[in-house]
Amino acid sequence: MDQNNTILGTGISGPGNPVYGSELAKISIVESASLALTEALLNSDISQELKLNDICAGIGLAGVNLPHVYDEMIKWQSPFKSIYLTTDIHIACLGAHEGHDGAVLISGTGTCGLSNVKNHSKIIGGHGFPQGDKGSGAWYGLNAVEAVLLALDEMAPPTTISKYMCQVLKASTAEEIISKVAGKPASFFACLANTVFSALEDKDEVALAIIDEGASYISKMARLLLKTTPPRISFIGGLAEWIIPYLDQDIQKQLSSSLFPPEAGAVFYARHQTASLK
Amino acid sequence: MDQNNTILGTGISGPGNPVYGSELAKISIVESASLALTEALLNSDISQELKLNDICAGIGLAGVNLPHVYDEMIKWQSPFKSIYLTTDIHIACLGAHEGHDGAVLISGTGTCGLSNVKNHSKIIGGHGFPQGDKGSGAWYGLNAVEAVLLALDEMAPPTTISKYMCQVLKASTAEEIISKVAGKPASFFACLANTVFSALEDKDEVALAIIDEGASYISKMARLLLKTTPPRISFIGGLAEWIIPYLDQDIQKQLSSSLFPPEAGAVFYARHQTASLK
Repeated sequence: MDQNNTILGTGISGPGNPVYGSELAKISIVESASLALTEALLNSDISQELKLNDICAGIGLAGVNLPHVYDEMIKWQSPFKSIYLTTDIHIACLGAHEGHDGAVLISGTGTCGLSNVKNHSKIIGGHGFPQGDKGSGAWYGLNAVEAVLLALDEMAPPTTISKYMCQVLKASTAEEIISKVAGKPASFFACLANTVFSALEDKDEVALAIIDEGASYISKMARLLLKTTPPRISFIGGLAEWIIPYLDQDIQKQLSSSLFPPEAGAVFYARHQTASLK
Repeated sequence: MDQNNTILGTGISGPGNPVYGSELAKISIVESASLALTEALLNSDISQELKLNDICAGIGLAGVNLPHVYDEMIKWQSPFKSIYLTTDIHIACLGAHEGHDGAVLISGTGTCGLSNVKNHSKIIGGHGFPQGDKGSGAWYGLNAVEAVLLALDEMAPPTTISKYMCQVLKASTAEEIISKVAGKPASFFACLANTVFSALEDKDEVALAIIDEGASYISKMARLLLKTTPPRISFIGGLAEWIIPYLDQDIQKQLSSSLFPPEAGAVFYARHQTASLK
């Protein structure tokens, strides 16, 4: 990104979560940065001499809230001039508010909330699947499977979620559904979240109850974050657009659109850090 | 077991769930049967000449409700004279009612219900963790972890489950709890079920709500099974004694104690099958 926040180059590589392998995360970071740098050099009049070790890298990663994961990554003898390391949710928040104070609600595969006001940060959720992440894609998908299995057993009301679930999973019995979902990770269940939202077209009461429960968790998270008086609050992630209409009305009204993507937040973070060192 | 249903010998071996390895299940079955036979021969006046291939084996296994698992096991060239294969829950039901018609509710690591009346059987639940098995040990454990994490985030009322959870997990923060439970199987969560029941001593409202939700699922399962008019209904499994006081009063009154353990049900099953072939 240049000084006017115009994006000059981007790069996408492999997995970057150091909890599942810090060496792979490091390879992915270097590869994606190299790709972004190559593109930036082609698309701008920056001197072709610029290399990774001229660059102060802002890096936002899942898992670095855990001290041992942070320590492992911060010790890295990286090819960059320096690295500034923070969490994925922190850069998402910085991105949403162009590097300024604010709060974010995130619902993608998981859910999390963060406010960042006057150097104080408050984090809610992000506890993972299945023990946390209410209102996330994985949580909606799991609740959809539960509702369908209960309905097939006549232990709960029938639901049209069943119809969409059987289509998505190419299954027609409880046994087939179970054999397709058993032992699957959060990302798999997140792919089933749309079955709940599809069932809304049928005015399905079971689907509506599930959607309301997830949305009410997000509204409550927003309410706790608003107590920290952030200048702006945004709701981001793949599920955000689907959930927004079901949030409490007063929360909906307070949402501001996200200004930049999380990756830009990592650049804002690096700028803050280098500025504060000067 | 002799003709009077006196147990002459027992044997315990390794895992017997063919879903996780049919060869290991076969080894476990042969080993446990050999141990039982050795003990029976020592403790009785049966001719020492009796060998596995003189024996018609009744075998109750998890997973054989799935056709491909059943087919895999029934093709087995076993060392027995013959094998009679059915599900673990079916033999539990036969055991509970001394080989006669009846229904069982099971809550251990998972939950399941079965009625077996006039050669018709009805099965409810048993869908596995985390998508099913409401009211099971794993379900209570997962709900306990969820409640504790929500309380620590101030997203739900405080609960004394937290105190017991931190003791059991030797954890003191949300991060420590998450790192101990992340990715753990149903059996691990089942070990946390007691934290909910412990919190009852403190008249904890959150614990009571979780216990009621699980118990209400079991009551409903009982009600559906009672529609098949079983002569008896029993509630078995590690959680049964804890949950019984929270079942609907009319369901509690209809429960009969289990007469024999599931293993004896496998013997009853083999007897039925050999008798019906004569």
